[in-house]
Amino acid sequence: MESQEAFAVFRKGISKFIEFDEAEWETVSRFLDLKKLKKKGHFAEPGIVCNEIGFILTGSVRYFNVKDGEEITGYFSFENELVSSYRSFLTRQPSLNYIQALEDTELVIITHKNMQAMLANPLLAYKMERFGRLVAEFYLICYEERMSSFITKTPEERYLDLLNTGREIIQRMPQHYIAHFLGITPVSLSRIRRRIMRAA
Amino acid sequence: MESQEAFAVFRKGISKFIEFDEAEWETVSRFLDLKKLKKKGHFAEPGIVCNEIGFILTGSVRYFNVKDGEEITGYFSFENELVSSYRSFLTRQPSLNYIQALEDTELVIITHKNMQAMLANPLLAYKMERFGRLVAEFYLICYEERMSSFITKTPEERYLDLLNTGREIIQRMPQHYIAHFLGITPVSLSRIRRRIMRAA
Repeated sequence: MESQEAFAVFRKGISKFIEFDEAEWETVSRFLDLKKLKKKGHFAEPGIVCNEIGFILTGSVRYFNVKDGEEITGYFSFENELVSSYRSFLTRQPSLNYIQALEDTELVIITHKNMQAMLANPLLAYKMERFGRLVAEFYLICYEERMSSFITKTPEERYLDLLNTGREIIQRMPQHYIAHFLGITPVSLSRIRRRIMRAA
Repeated sequence: MESQEAFAVFRKGISKFIEFDEAEWETVSRFLDLKKLKKKGHFAEPGIVCNEIGFILTGSVRYFNVKDGEEITGYFSFENELVSSYRSFLTRQPSLNYIQALEDTELVIITHKNMQAMLANPLLAYKMERFGRLVAEFYLICYEERMSSFITKTPEERYLDLLNTGREIIQRMPQHYIAHFLGITPVSLSRIRRRIMRAA
């Protein structure tokens, strides 16, 4: 994608959080970059500070931790969604997890340095603080819902929730990633799917 | 506590996020209230929208969900910490969990309406956006660390982390709350404690 076209997609994608007028946008766009990840390429990895927030133009990523040599998938992000190892990006400490492209993935990125520059820019400061607040709150809400669903819901209820979100996880992801995401084994997931299909 | 004294404690407590000059503070303090909870009183409960963010002056609270009649404790907050059912406060949807005072607890509170008023106040807007961003980011980081520790660490490692945080959870909380917080049974926690004591 050409950078001007890509930046326009980004502008529209984040408009649910914040809208910029032309003068502001002219400045914002100077702080944006493009990045391409090949399938299986890493956006973040343990032990390395994550220096970027990304916005996915095309493609998808998964978040995972490695435990006893096994990859435990915790989250996915798709087109029009933001992606970062936020704790690492915010605290400048090494990432705790991997973020890996599931297919060839194109992103608009904001580096940590550019984010700081925008937060310090008098023309942009207020809107960038607001953008940052709304994004952090959005992910805080995701975490809270996910934690609660693990405590109060059955794997089958979590699977039905996932179907109902209308997100593309179900169609595009390998079954064993979805199973991990739901906190169950692939065998249990097959059993749940059969049960739901019989009931439908 | 007298309200002026209480508000001064709050001002100092949140200074790690944001500092207000005298003119700003004079306005902020008009949007603050005091609240007292008796031991076992609820700050939030499922099915009800949480209308407040609190700052604990004295006392402590625990966050819990109820699953099959059993209380599953997920988090604690103590003096000088903020407390809210954030998803509910932010989205205006009913809370997913209880927040309950573990002892008589005094708080400074900001109602949702007062928070909106401060965010819309030209004198305060920028600093309140920044305050909101930094608070949301702080809790986002807590969630990310907690999720990662559940995936990658053993219960014993999580218990040692808890000892190392220097927070007062260990001294002041009943053992079965701590066990739930670590995602283990009280019996497993006793076993871990004995093992650590023998090793010390």
